[in-house]
Amino acid sequence: MAEKRYLLTPGPTPVPPEVLAELAKPVIHHRERDYREIYEQCLARLREVYRTEHDVLMFTTSGTGAFESAVANLTSPGDRQLVISAGNFGERWAGMARAFGADLVHTRLEWGETPEPEDLRSALAEAGDVRVVYLTHSETSTGVVCDVQSLAAVAKEAGALVVVDAVSSLGAVPLETDAWGIDVVVSGSQKALMCPPGIAFVSVSPAALEAASISTSPRYVMDWERTRKAQAKLDAPFTPAIPIVRAQNVALGLLLEEGLEAAFGRHARLGRACREGAKAMGLELFSPDEESSAVVTAIRAPDGVDATEIVEGLRNRFAITIANGQGDLKGKIFRIGHIGWFNVFDITTALAAVELVLTDAGAEIERGVAVTRALEAWAEHTPV
Amino acid sequence: MAEKRYLLTPGPTPVPPEVLAELAKPVIHHRERDYREIYEQCLARLREVYRTEHDVLMFTTSGTGAFESAVANLTSPGDRQLVISAGNFGERWAGMARAFGADLVHTRLEWGETPEPEDLRSALAEAGDVRVVYLTHSETSTGVVCDVQSLAAVAKEAGALVVVDAVSSLGAVPLETDAWGIDVVVSGSQKALMCPPGIAFVSVSPAALEAASISTSPRYVMDWERTRKAQAKLDAPFTPAIPIVRAQNVALGLLLEEGLEAAFGRHARLGRACREGAKAMGLELFSPDEESSAVVTAIRAPDGVDATEIVEGLRNRFAITIANGQGDLKGKIFRIGHIGWFNVFDITTALAAVELVLTDAGAEIERGVAVTRALEAWAEHTPV
Repeated sequence: MAEKRYLLTPGPTPVPPEVLAELAKPVIHHRERDYREIYEQCLARLREVYRTEHDVLMFTTSGTGAFESAVANLTSPGDRQLVISAGNFGERWAGMARAFGADLVHTRLEWGETPEPEDLRSALAEAGDVRVVYLTHSETSTGVVCDVQSLAAVAKEAGALVVVDAVSSLGAVPLETDAWGIDVVVSGSQKALMCPPGIAFVSVSPAALEAASISTSPRYVMDWERTRKAQAKLDAPFTPAIPIVRAQNVALGLLLEEGLEAAFGRHARLGRACREGAKAMGLELFSPDEESSAVVTAIRAPDGVDATEIVEGLRNRFAITIANGQGDLKGKIFRIGHIGWFNVFDITTALAAVELVLTDAGAEIERGVAVTRALEAWAEHTPV
Repeated sequence: MAEKRYLLTPGPTPVPPEVLAELAKPVIHHRERDYREIYEQCLARLREVYRTEHDVLMFTTSGTGAFESAVANLTSPGDRQLVISAGNFGERWAGMARAFGADLVHTRLEWGETPEPEDLRSALAEAGDVRVVYLTHSETSTGVVCDVQSLAAVAKEAGALVVVDAVSSLGAVPLETDAWGIDVVVSGSQKALMCPPGIAFVSVSPAALEAASISTSPRYVMDWERTRKAQAKLDAPFTPAIPIVRAQNVALGLLLEEGLEAAFGRHARLGRACREGAKAMGLELFSPDEESSAVVTAIRAPDGVDATEIVEGLRNRFAITIANGQGDLKGKIFRIGHIGWFNVFDITTALAAVELVLTDAGAEIERGVAVTRALEAWAEHTPV
């Protein structure tokens, strides 16, 4: 039988067949009318998903590249900025701000902790005049989704611009760009937006654009103003990744057809199903056992088993790809993604396979309960 | 009948169906074994096409983005650098080097001129201690392909690093990265490499990497050393545009199956067929009437006809996309691309349609001779 594969990582994520089919269409020119129509629709849909009236700028790059555009456009050497981090991606943003010469205050929590408004408030008070605060909405390395609304409010109070990494959260958990006063929201095509990787996005508030107009970091392709001006004429300043943009437009159409609130509810239920299933078979969660853990579930490997063994077992025996821990957590936790084109049977597939691999590895696992419990939890009502 | 479309611009270019089909395959993870195998093969094929033993770094970006990586990695503010330009892209590189704070000498020829070694030699002598020279191999805005081998030799003599924009030339006309001593060759997926846009490449000589290690321009995603280190382990530092990389691998396989020399010969014959056909119907060439004009043919609109009318006529009446002039040449010239997945019937299609549109516009065009002459010219032997 042809191998049947399962991509269950927190990004890249599996994409619907309609999206794959769109990729295979003959190349059209990005200055043609047809492309402009697709582009216009895609930008409008992005604004709808972002819940913003302002521009969402599109770049041919990874999520990290789009985040770099925020740093490059908002940083002059010596600018006082603050990163609050509790995992791999937060630390990446700190490294990036330093690479651009920011006078960086790095508030570093333990990996897996949830940054709280009080943490940020005291860090800002101590740091003094901070101009930009970088937040990670969903820390993909740990499964933590923080309360970015409250954190942003604290940063705004202190007079800072707020930049949010929403690469793995946008479209999966609630995020209100304008209503929450977030100046810059960074996201990418390959997570909850159900598209392959290749393009990434940045929403920009008027205050962010104003700050960009005086920042001195050199940039060209990633320059916000150049891209904003081009997009205003439905032009792309540089040749875009045409098939990915088309695919993204189709994927956003599917997401908006489901409805954002429905998608948020689905992700919450997927997270709950995954956690309940894992706990039922006796495993300990690493990510918080809370409704907000709707993006990726991080689970501790049981005593005596290396998480790498689990990840490789799933891959080698069942062609199922999940994720290992990152950094110091490698081998200690494994991560099941449920972002984007996922339903409960993806969760039960992952749990059933984990159960098999752990049992064969000699772990004490209660058989047969994980799938049942996951399905029960999935069926519970999720208030929106 | 379903509309039959023809993409005959100098990029993005049409891609073979095998390449489109590859795009539509389900997403795999970029740290999986299967992806690594594809990635390894793609990087090896790139080195073969580049004719280099050194690393070819892959970035998720446009050709302009990859060029920016060269500027960012080779420039510290105040560095003396030189751009010799004779068209839109050369001017872009000058603007970019300035944006990164280079002390730039910009030797600016008229658009459509061919930069000659003597132009560069005298510019370098006058400028003094130039550390980096930027050259445009194929100036897509004018159709000029310069003698980059001789120009690079002049730059090397003067002790400068040589960076070549080969975005539209690599795979279409001869380019010997190592044998010609070129430190950095920039190219992109969407021209002669027969793939949709989305990824771009930079070959880096040991001298270029050494220079990058001391340059102070801030960069993160585009940092050469970070990407080089990751590639050495067959890792990608950031999530790559997975479908585009897969498609690029297939397209490079097709190119190498044809053989580089055969592909160069084909492009030379395509250029010759296009020029001969255009001249036969009484049109005046803008790009040089030389064998080197193998990438894009720029043709002057006849008296009394605006080139925009020709471009729009082809698009609106026949769904054929060709390119207008850029900058001051807009409306004055039109450009037929023949880069990548092209054969002579693409040229005869373009010429036949131009003949129809011009005739209807009242231009004095000799009917029926262009296609015949193009086919004759195509049949002539091309010495390699």
